[in-house]
Amino acid sequence: MDKVSIGLLGFGTVGTGVVRLLTRDRERLEERSGCKIELEKVLVRNKNRPRKVLIDNRKLTTDAEEILDNPKIDIVIELIGGVNRAYRYILHALRNKKNVITANKDLMAEHGRELLLEAKKNRCDLYYEASVAGGIPILRSLTDSLSADRIEKMIGIVNGTTNYILSKMSHEGLSYDKALASAQALGFAEADPTSDVEGLDAARKMVILSHLAYSIPVRLEDVKITGITDIASEDIFYAHKLGFTIKLVGVAEVNHGDIDVRVEPTLLPDGHPLASVEDENNAIYVYGSTLGETMFYGPGAGEGPTAISVVSDLLSIIQNISLGVTGNHIFLPDKELHPRSDSLVESRFFVRLSVKDSPGTLSKLTELFKEQGISLEKVYQEPIPGGENAGIAIVTHTTKKILFEKTFDTLKKLGVVLNAKYLRVERG
Amino acid sequence: MDKVSIGLLGFGTVGTGVVRLLTRDRERLEERSGCKIELEKVLVRNKNRPRKVLIDNRKLTTDAEEILDNPKIDIVIELIGGVNRAYRYILHALRNKKNVITANKDLMAEHGRELLLEAKKNRCDLYYEASVAGGIPILRSLTDSLSADRIEKMIGIVNGTTNYILSKMSHEGLSYDKALASAQALGFAEADPTSDVEGLDAARKMVILSHLAYSIPVRLEDVKITGITDIASEDIFYAHKLGFTIKLVGVAEVNHGDIDVRVEPTLLPDGHPLASVEDENNAIYVYGSTLGETMFYGPGAGEGPTAISVVSDLLSIIQNISLGVTGNHIFLPDKELHPRSDSLVESRFFVRLSVKDSPGTLSKLTELFKEQGISLEKVYQEPIPGGENAGIAIVTHTTKKILFEKTFDTLKKLGVVLNAKYLRVERG
Repeated sequence: MDKVSIGLLGFGTVGTGVVRLLTRDRERLEERSGCKIELEKVLVRNKNRPRKVLIDNRKLTTDAEEILDNPKIDIVIELIGGVNRAYRYILHALRNKKNVITANKDLMAEHGRELLLEAKKNRCDLYYEASVAGGIPILRSLTDSLSADRIEKMIGIVNGTTNYILSKMSHEGLSYDKALASAQALGFAEADPTSDVEGLDAARKMVILSHLAYSIPVRLEDVKITGITDIASEDIFYAHKLGFTIKLVGVAEVNHGDIDVRVEPTLLPDGHPLASVEDENNAIYVYGSTLGETMFYGPGAGEGPTAISVVSDLLSIIQNISLGVTGNHIFLPDKELHPRSDSLVESRFFVRLSVKDSPGTLSKLTELFKEQGISLEKVYQEPIPGGENAGIAIVTHTTKKILFEKTFDTLKKLGVVLNAKYLRVERG
Repeated sequence: MDKVSIGLLGFGTVGTGVVRLLTRDRERLEERSGCKIELEKVLVRNKNRPRKVLIDNRKLTTDAEEILDNPKIDIVIELIGGVNRAYRYILHALRNKKNVITANKDLMAEHGRELLLEAKKNRCDLYYEASVAGGIPILRSLTDSLSADRIEKMIGIVNGTTNYILSKMSHEGLSYDKALASAQALGFAEADPTSDVEGLDAARKMVILSHLAYSIPVRLEDVKITGITDIASEDIFYAHKLGFTIKLVGVAEVNHGDIDVRVEPTLLPDGHPLASVEDENNAIYVYGSTLGETMFYGPGAGEGPTAISVVSDLLSIIQNISLGVTGNHIFLPDKELHPRSDSLVESRFFVRLSVKDSPGTLSKLTELFKEQGISLEKVYQEPIPGGENAGIAIVTHTTKKILFEKTFDTLKKLGVVLNAKYLRVERG
């Protein structure tokens, strides 16, 4: 094989990064892959928009079929985002026996299995490393390097926007609103940040990770999702007093034949490797039954890192084409596991309360936990300046979630409690 | 293909781990690889020694040729360690068209290129993921996932023994000797710890990493090596006062057509992700020109983690056999780069001194640095209890190494300086 030809769908940030890499590092990439890499066509919305990289204008097209039905093109790279149009384009490309690379997590979380089946049927590759934590080679690691082990649990900081916001709140004492505004000003958050701050983006990535780690077709509806919009500076302050950092983490865990996938703001012990993942960075912590604990850390997004993931997929596909083995590495989630019933979930919990600062208040609270058989690991109390109230923070030992929630409901109704909230605490 | 047959050379800790995994997880591994995996023969020194895993005694042999010349065997796993015998066995196996997996870093650092060439010639695979940081899939990440990027620098904590010793010294205030004794008692250090504490083990791993990241046949003689035997509790104490942690790190860096590979105790800023890698854990930090910074963290050794790396290699080779593409993924270091001349090396430096505690001492020191054009980033001074001396710690800004060393020599000869030492400081 002398040459592969590429069609690019979409010319936004990541598309620009891919073209930049293919142009600037052409010699090195062609040496590595052993053949010429030709960018044949790029699908754009507007051919006349100024571009940040040099490109021959005749390569731009507004007609997707010039790529999808182009017999010259071997590999299609989908970077338009969204679900419906991307889905149709990829299906079209695969049916025309074109190999596909996508960075589209929404699409892969929703239609991944179906598209992978179609790829397999057509003996084509469908690679999507960039869809989760662009720049961190976690998908490949799950399918290749860690495939010898039985993975029991993954904890991921897989959304850079929320990690940036929580880092700012934690280190600079900003309120949620100010931290969000700062993230938006720097381009780490969208004008409409809903899908990030409500946890949906992280949930989609946990669905994709679960497919690969557990071979289970988890659905987005099975993920329990809580975002960070209710996190107050006080939560971070009191968590810190007890030795914890609050992060939005995705957890996917299998146990006794069931699976629990959730995304929620969670307390991590300060010494936990994930607790020091700052700003817009991502990291995925993997527990293997034989391997023990391992972590993958890096940038989770951005032009460069995401482009690297896309072009690494490209080099793999070129190798597969030249060996004649495309479609052979497709890995399909095909096991059945049931979502874990809430009655089986156990955890430590963090409780933060404002109470009337009167004698015996703390002992009333601790008595209530004791009656319910929940033992406490850490307690911190201090007066709230300028008033007659006190702030209290508690971390329990591991307990059944349903028992904890029942106790928490009773606690909220105690006359001395002004307000109360709780969060989960990860093990150390 | 219905079945692959394996010959195992060596039945020590890692060999036991491999047999345990192949036995316990047989069903899952066979499902994953799509064929039966048969352990045919195991080379041992003594057939009658008790074993920690169940094995049919008839599979044990003391005759290597029963494996190397056995036409039934498809894949040979070398776990005997050492260089000479392992080299002969692997060469023998490859010439008999057997695919090979090894965990032997000494061998791969010394004869890697030669053995990989032989493998390629025979269209066989030679995989060695377990040779560096067993359990962390760093070799595969360098050849696959990060291959699209131009790697500029790697910093690795790749020796668990020394990291354990330095962690103990740092957190429990132990002396080097006591920390070493503790490591030996727990099995983290050998009775003769020379190759670990003198940095040779880490240097071999940096050689292997450099082959893959830079495609350069670096030789062990080109690596500048300093071990940790001269690190005193005081170094750790004063480094900590200035906001740094001392780790034995391997650094491999390319720049302007030359390469610098070294292993030495180095100060890392406390916030650096590598600074919080504790105990016997390993981590490799990679700087890509487009990707930015990424880190791989996990256990660096041990029965389980190393066995996982070996069996992941096994699954890859089985896939290659079934696709008919063994020998096609061999990656040979073939570029020429020259070791960097010391005159080009620049760094920040940490200086620790004991001085006579008399007026003007500190200004004499700072004056000397100023005269040489070296500016200081941080200075800390405190009286040494029970005497008339003071301890001083200094971190310089980035400066040329030769200029720094000349200045340091002058400094040592100042009348007020009782003793002095220096270490390198990594950038943040």
